[in-house]
Amino acid sequence: MICVRACKRGAERGNMKGSFITFEGCEGVGKTTQVEKLRRYLMESGQDAIFLREPGGTVISEKIREMLLSKENDKMNGKCEALLYSAARAQLLGEIVAPALESGKIVICDRFTDSTFAYQGAARGLGVDFIDELNKLTCGDIVPDVTVFLDMRPEEAFKRKGGADKNDRLESQSIEFHRKVYDGYKEVAVRYPHRFVCIDASKDAEGVWQDVIALLRERTSVK
Amino acid sequence: MICVRACKRGAERGNMKGSFITFEGCEGVGKTTQVEKLRRYLMESGQDAIFLREPGGTVISEKIREMLLSKENDKMNGKCEALLYSAARAQLLGEIVAPALESGKIVICDRFTDSTFAYQGAARGLGVDFIDELNKLTCGDIVPDVTVFLDMRPEEAFKRKGGADKNDRLESQSIEFHRKVYDGYKEVAVRYPHRFVCIDASKDAEGVWQDVIALLRERTSVK
Repeated sequence: MICVRACKRGAERGNMKGSFITFEGCEGVGKTTQVEKLRRYLMESGQDAIFLREPGGTVISEKIREMLLSKENDKMNGKCEALLYSAARAQLLGEIVAPALESGKIVICDRFTDSTFAYQGAARGLGVDFIDELNKLTCGDIVPDVTVFLDMRPEEAFKRKGGADKNDRLESQSIEFHRKVYDGYKEVAVRYPHRFVCIDASKDAEGVWQDVIALLRERTSVK
Repeated sequence: MICVRACKRGAERGNMKGSFITFEGCEGVGKTTQVEKLRRYLMESGQDAIFLREPGGTVISEKIREMLLSKENDKMNGKCEALLYSAARAQLLGEIVAPALESGKIVICDRFTDSTFAYQGAARGLGVDFIDELNKLTCGDIVPDVTVFLDMRPEEAFKRKGGADKNDRLESQSIEFHRKVYDGYKEVAVRYPHRFVCIDASKDAEGVWQDVIALLRERTSVK
């Protein structure tokens, strides 16, 4: 594992001293469980952290989220959708993430730019280069210090979960769709190997957590 | 004046046979008057045309417009704003402009990407390269055949109008702001000389109209 201290990563982002950590993965790989374990760990050890979900997190971003999720807007095209996700993200970064990092906080985001890359870019066919470019324009120099990718193929994740959740529009997509999402994530791993870390998610929750916390303590300001 | 026939311009955009015309200019230069003259001309000569304004023109784009104009959202940052404009534009292009051009219609848009370039990019300081890149991502190959820039310095336009409209947030900005908008437009003229045509807007409305219609008859499918 490459050891890059948080202070160095922060310096690369200008004056931002905190750590920016994102979690990514296909459906059913245990992302929520690991984020929850991290929340409890940081709270119990008295470390100041902000947990975010996308799209949302500010009044304006939540309004954009409503627009994205509303069934009324089923004529929305893929490009409009990707740009709305980016608009919500730009507001979140400016209003919450950047000031928090500047004041030295740990910021954890459940899904971020790599989800847009994998879902909209790779699986929905908007093109990974298009999304990559859009992500760069939206985020500028606010890039995660570490992205924890919980690595498990969708076939395996669904088997473990006992099938996809039919009530969720995304989860009920075909297995081909989820394979494309997985391949999209693997493309991120090739493009951004310095921050995108694949963690074997086939272990039990406690085993995965040990790998996650070891990674974060090595590469971020998490103690 | 470079003579490029509409059929050739359409071919550059794939199978799109119609003409895409945009109008741009600083406040008070007579843009509304010229667009109205064109609307009447096309109607009276039985030419099929669609007139659009931005942001808006589709149900989704109008919802985004509401969000952009609402005073409740005064914490919105510049990047979020630019991305929302782009989202509304992507929906308008996919739902209205592209099908209209494919079916051979003339599409006229009162303000388009160059307004974002001049207002958000140059005057509000988001950076013209950022906006240029965002415009390219948003529009792909749907680029105006001709952009009519009604060319008049803001000092002159305000003098003619008897001062700026104090009730309009944009118009009540300082003259420095409008000078930056004008300089932004002039930068577009340098970057996209093949489509961006500066028309002297200091003539009387009829004189300007004669130049506008001569240009459109030469460069687009307007007869």
